[in-house]
Amino acid sequence: MIANKERVGMEFKTNRIEALNDGIFAIAMTILIISFETLFQQPDFLNESSLLSLISQLWPDFLHYCISFLLLGIFWIQHHNHSHYIKGSNTQSLYINIIGLMFISLIPFSASIASDYAHLRPAALLFEINLLLAGVAFFAYWAYASGKRRLTDDSLDAKTKSYYTRRSLVIPLVSLIAICLAFVNPRISTMLYLLVPVILWVYK
Amino acid sequence: MIANKERVGMEFKTNRIEALNDGIFAIAMTILIISFETLFQQPDFLNESSLLSLISQLWPDFLHYCISFLLLGIFWIQHHNHSHYIKGSNTQSLYINIIGLMFISLIPFSASIASDYAHLRPAALLFEINLLLAGVAFFAYWAYASGKRRLTDDSLDAKTKSYYTRRSLVIPLVSLIAICLAFVNPRISTMLYLLVPVILWVYK
Amino acid sequence: MIANKERVGMEFKTNRIEALNDGIFAIAMTILIISFETLFQQPDFLNESSLLSLISQLWPDFLHYCISFLLLGIFWIQHHNHSHYIKGSNTQSLYINIIGLMFISLIPFSASIASDYAHLRPAALLFEINLLLAGVAFFAYWAYASGKRRLTDDSLDAKTKSYYTRRSLVIPLVSLIAICLAFVNPRISTMLYLLVPVILWVYK
Amino acid sequence: MIANKERVGMEFKTNRIEALNDGIFAIAMTILIISFETLFQQPDFLNESSLLSLISQLWPDFLHYCISFLLLGIFWIQHHNHSHYIKGSNTQSLYINIIGLMFISLIPFSASIASDYAHLRPAALLFEINLLLAGVAFFAYWAYASGKRRLTDDSLDAKTKSYYTRRSLVIPLVSLIAICLAFVNPRISTMLYLLVPVILWVYK
Repeated sequence: MIANKERVGMEFKTNRIEALNDGIFAIAMTILIISFETLFQQPDFLNESSLLSLISQLWPDFLHYCISFLLLGIFWIQHHNHSHYIKGSNTQSLYINIIGLMFISLIPFSASIASDYAHLRPAALLFEINLLLAGVAFFAYWAYASGKRRLTDDSLDAKTKSYYTRRSLVIPLVSLIAICLAFVNPRISTMLYLLVPVILWVYK
Repeated sequence: MIANKERVGMEFKTNRIEALNDGIFAIAMTILIISFETLFQQPDFLNESSLLSLISQLWPDFLHYCISFLLLGIFWIQHHNHSHYIKGSNTQSLYINIIGLMFISLIPFSASIASDYAHLRPAALLFEINLLLAGVAFFAYWAYASGKRRLTDDSLDAKTKSYYTRRSLVIPLVSLIAICLAFVNPRISTMLYLLVPVILWVYK
Repeated sequence: MIANKERVGMEFKTNRIEALNDGIFAIAMTILIISFETLFQQPDFLNESSLLSLISQLWPDFLHYCISFLLLGIFWIQHHNHSHYIKGSNTQSLYINIIGLMFISLIPFSASIASDYAHLRPAALLFEINLLLAGVAFFAYWAYASGKRRLTDDSLDAKTKSYYTRRSLVIPLVSLIAICLAFVNPRISTMLYLLVPVILWVYK
Repeated sequence: MIANKERVGMEFKTNRIEALNDGIFAIAMTILIISFETLFQQPDFLNESSLLSLISQLWPDFLHYCISFLLLGIFWIQHHNHSHYIKGSNTQSLYINIIGLMFISLIPFSASIASDYAHLRPAALLFEINLLLAGVAFFAYWAYASGKRRLTDDSLDAKTKSYYTRRSLVIPLVSLIAICLAFVNPRISTMLYLLVPVILWVYK
């Protein structure tokens, strides 16, 4: 069966995986907004001031929307950069990728809970554990593909490899700190993710 | 009209079909989560313990989410592998593919029913018949394309062809067993699909 | 400004247009199912027989789902075939395409109305007028692109051109007949679309 | 770290960014319709005349749907044209793009508010500020990429560059005027966007 295993290996192109990932990221990013709409499901006869106050109550939701969108964007940029060096796929890498996408698809749900119940610890923890698991899966994808040059070629030197390995640990590590912080203050713990783009920007 | 028929045949590239399939799989996988959100549609004034109990009640839903996501992922990996050998399309193959996608798009719906009413036989049967039909359509796509080398080229040898044929029978066969099992115990019958990745892993 | 106009012309590749279209078709096809879920929004404490009767009441919805999915599939196959010959884009063709997609995106909505109120004339007419307009826009796209060889090259001979022109008139013509029939019997008029794949199959 | 920075620079292809953008545009365009469906969430026992009056009440919504769809289409065409000249990406351009997409994804939400409460100033302003921000982000993307030839090559001459710069200012400028007009008449202010395709058509 080794022959089959090899056939399923490096020889497969990665363009389809990229298409599936791009699609799932695009949808997850777009349906983040759907949780907003529930606020407006009961269209009462609103007047100008009541609508204005309804919209202004959206600001915390909007902040959470920005954080979640940015995190999805950062995951996508990471995957985009990794894909540049990953030249093939095998069954293992496909499964790790599917598991990573499973947690990405959960983000719109856990983000809407974290946004609706920002002051409650289980809501913040759900969001942060979700991001931790997504982050670990994406780290594992890169570690598996680049480890022992399984699915990368010579264009990836040791320095670049370690550079991307370190970067893909940022979201998992921030998540771990956020999870601890959630026991002190749930509301602040989810705000911690605003550091992620800053960290990635400074240590580039 | 034979001339036209031939023109519609092998000459067309398959990249568009792949894009449509990737898109539909990405969306089906992402909207699996939407059934979760209904639970939270009536945002009562929850406190920490009531939210925690609400989230912990989600575990069976989460398990069903994982199963459905994994099955969609496995269908996608299968299609991804088949596409590697399928070099063209004709009217027949396009229609078989559209019918397959029709059943794939139904999965978020039947999965949400199977998850909400896990203990009821009709819910489990709906999900399992859906997967059976999707599985048969994807098997038919591969059988049609690879049979008589209709849409494949010389890179597909007999051994590989039979290898993929056997693999694409796994979901239909497990579905048949699950349908029988549903008459005994609906809840366990949908869990049977957890065997699919194991079977595919062992017999690779 | 002629220079600019030319620059915006043939030189642009069509791969992005195809990607946008594939995406919109994939989503429209997948969210057809969302109208199903509303039936199950109020999860009462169902027992086996009440769930079974609820599912069996879905059959007319399922038939409508199949018709709409198939029609979207046929539109997509048409666009897929046309794209094979269309080698470029200009502002006009981009706008015609956007207008076509605007009516494609409406189909999940008008289909859900036509399915929920199958016996009412305005519901059937809404669906049929929607398909008429989508069909006319897609016909216009092909007619514009292939007319005077604006966006096609020499690989498109007169016979093939007229072959695809005739085929892209099938949905508009069936829609016109269905609109007339809706005044007699709304329920049967939407079933008329089942003829579309038959007609396309016979006259290929 | 300069080496890393350069590596992340021009060398990366733009096909993935295009795929993400195409996906997000496709979804945003398709879920514009979802706000329609809420009107029909409570399926009362309608008769022919009550359904007809319900559908005819949709006309203002349909007009807003057309405007939003067209604006998304115009944004997409713009991005499509810009991409023709942009040959690479770097961290800055990826982030500007993600921020632009964040505002694009908000459009289905703000459009549904603007449509449901067309006569109320906060609703119109929300929609117009959203379009202003999206327009500015897309302008910034082009200005950044084409400025100092950061991410474009020699195929972009000064005249074409300024041509596209001017065009990408149309939506921001119309938005500014619409915002002012909203204080006089909210309903008319959102109609102002019907001028956008006209302006782009005349000054091409």
